[in-house]
Amino acid sequence: MRFSHLFTATRRDAPKDEVAKNAQLLVRAGFIHKEMAGVYSYLPLGFRVLKKIENIIREEMDAIGGQEVLLTALQDPDVWKKSGRWSDDVVDNWFKTTLANGAEAGIANTHEEPLTALMREHVRSYRDLPRYVYQIQDKFRNELRAKSGLMRGREFIMKDLYSFTKDENELERFHEKCAEAYLRIFRRVGLGELTYRTFASGGAFSKYSDEFQTLSEAGEDTIYVDKEKGIAVNKEVYTDEALADLGLKKENLVEAKAIEVGNIFKLGTRFSEALGLTYRDEDGAEKPVVMGSYGIGLGRLMGAAVEVFSDEKGIVWPEEIAPFAYHLIALGAERTVRARADEIYDMFAASGAEALYDDREESAGVKFADAELIGIPTVIIVSEKTLSAGEDRVEVRRRATGASRMARIGDIVT
Amino acid sequence: MRFSHLFTATRRDAPKDEVAKNAQLLVRAGFIHKEMAGVYSYLPLGFRVLKKIENIIREEMDAIGGQEVLLTALQDPDVWKKSGRWSDDVVDNWFKTTLANGAEAGIANTHEEPLTALMREHVRSYRDLPRYVYQIQDKFRNELRAKSGLMRGREFIMKDLYSFTKDENELERFHEKCAEAYLRIFRRVGLGELTYRTFASGGAFSKYSDEFQTLSEAGEDTIYVDKEKGIAVNKEVYTDEALADLGLKKENLVEAKAIEVGNIFKLGTRFSEALGLTYRDEDGAEKPVVMGSYGIGLGRLMGAAVEVFSDEKGIVWPEEIAPFAYHLIALGAERTVRARADEIYDMFAASGAEALYDDREESAGVKFADAELIGIPTVIIVSEKTLSAGEDRVEVRRRATGASRMARIGDIVT
Repeated sequence: MRFSHLFTATRRDAPKDEVAKNAQLLVRAGFIHKEMAGVYSYLPLGFRVLKKIENIIREEMDAIGGQEVLLTALQDPDVWKKSGRWSDDVVDNWFKTTLANGAEAGIANTHEEPLTALMREHVRSYRDLPRYVYQIQDKFRNELRAKSGLMRGREFIMKDLYSFTKDENELERFHEKCAEAYLRIFRRVGLGELTYRTFASGGAFSKYSDEFQTLSEAGEDTIYVDKEKGIAVNKEVYTDEALADLGLKKENLVEAKAIEVGNIFKLGTRFSEALGLTYRDEDGAEKPVVMGSYGIGLGRLMGAAVEVFSDEKGIVWPEEIAPFAYHLIALGAERTVRARADEIYDMFAASGAEALYDDREESAGVKFADAELIGIPTVIIVSEKTLSAGEDRVEVRRRATGASRMARIGDIVT
Repeated sequence: MRFSHLFTATRRDAPKDEVAKNAQLLVRAGFIHKEMAGVYSYLPLGFRVLKKIENIIREEMDAIGGQEVLLTALQDPDVWKKSGRWSDDVVDNWFKTTLANGAEAGIANTHEEPLTALMREHVRSYRDLPRYVYQIQDKFRNELRAKSGLMRGREFIMKDLYSFTKDENELERFHEKCAEAYLRIFRRVGLGELTYRTFASGGAFSKYSDEFQTLSEAGEDTIYVDKEKGIAVNKEVYTDEALADLGLKKENLVEAKAIEVGNIFKLGTRFSEALGLTYRDEDGAEKPVVMGSYGIGLGRLMGAAVEVFSDEKGIVWPEEIAPFAYHLIALGAERTVRARADEIYDMFAASGAEALYDDREESAGVKFADAELIGIPTVIIVSEKTLSAGEDRVEVRRRATGASRMARIGDIVT
């Protein structure tokens, strides 16, 4: 994409109404736009990052047998009354609205109830199980405060998968399989080394739930990490009993702040019993389906990446989720430089490599500052200086390290 | 995908609460699920159709210079008050909700206002224009009645593009370019021959707007079609004056019912003036940006395709938006048949062809009925009969015509 075509402008100064680093940088660099507190639109650069995260998650969910659907935001109160979660006294962050006929409707904050009701029409016998159903879609939560940028939104995009299994053993097997898929996702988006499977409080059905926590000072959670074993414990279950359960020793644990980037819960029969989702087993007996839920917030993941991969100059995107792989800069207005940069941009396009091409009539200072703010991993510079070293030479600068070298363009575009 | 893996079951009978053919067939075949009147979730088969439509639209919008964004459902009343569209007396189909702090918020029924407000931060001078910004996202409209299935929803997925141009000439040029892109989209999804660019009432800024109408008895609109010229007039502007304006003659027009599958409007400076979106022209004068809007409902398009491409047995998908290209059926439980069908399914997978493989232990009758209901264009049958004609032989049946022939599998999978 040509920078001159991109409609978003960068800003030198952080927006005054943002306190979270991720929101400050993403707004300044033109990735997102704040509509209201905790409600952000994605602009072209942010949309590209979002789609890359989405594709990685989709591949991993498909790989473990997930089937993709798209449920609705508008919700019929009836299904929520069955589980006892319609009341604002039980769920304190509902957004509700009124239909033209005067009836109430909800705006989905999660989808256990409607999906469980939907599955009743498709699950009859043990032969119809297990099923793994997921979606990538908006959630709405009526948070009183929303100051963490993309990390805690009133409207946010989430991947939520729900498992429907015959029994606890089958649930347990999928739970582990999904936990492994989650670790692959966090590795692939570039957060792998900082992200730990973390034991947290479980709820009615199981002693512990699994969170995935990314180490960051911006995190709202405190965890205790065993780096050797590669797992952690949330402060909320940091007791002698839990440590014994998990085979962890206090002396090996390090306290750290962390961002919860994913979670998986064993739901058991909580929703299937409330909504009547049963199946007939091999012996003809009717049993409630055993469920689990598995969430990842896509915006939160993007926000977490910015929190941990940024410096005083801007964002430093990991390769796999960067909006573009290359940031091509033409320095100076000389016709030879422009013509060569145009050629290189065409080479990128022809090879299928994704490049943002700064073809604007701006100073070197402005172009470099924007490149550092936007944070594309590899910056390719074409200038009189590089041309004088040879027609096929460019300067290659790594955003992460600032390291710069001369290279043949043919060695980069293959 | 293996049919045994697909979580949705088909139904023999139409749901009692649906009157529209598109909803009856799509629910029966397991493509969608009704959450409330006018509110449908997309199940795996429906989701695949939706993604195909989405990809075609995205390609065509990108090709005319569109930049993709994702705006929010939650809306700040302030921007809507500026244009005078917050009041329920002006816009009668708002869904509204209340924030935790007691303030009101809207749930977007369209996005002119928030996008115009957003563009203020990115447009300064004539050099920043034109810009074409689009999204594929949910809209919410509080319809009192919603009985048309996917054709008129309370929550529905729409592609909406907004153009920001310097003047009416630039608007006019893009308007025509987008109209051509729309015709390409309708051709590509298979509705081309039935869809007419239709002149309709314009509003404050221009005499006419452009609708795209697909001929169907299920349509809510009445249009007058000039098949020779390939254009039509909506009944709402069917006057002698309009016919003269458009160079149409009454005797060449045929009355028909039609479904509005797209529309494009010249908005002029209605929203840019209300929200203060201006630019400095070459002479330094401040002028309001001239806008246009361009919509296509993805679900409505899917619904329209089902209305016009279906028969008493089920849906007959056009090739480009079918959930799968091939419906592979293994007839009978013989091990040789199963083994050969498995091999063919693997051949499809290896070649990248998309196939739904009916590997269930069901009768031929059930399998054929489901294939006809689901409506995948090409059905490939493997049976003892085909094997006896040769290891590499299959029966190929076209869903649209019912025509059947024997073929070598190698000629199908390449």
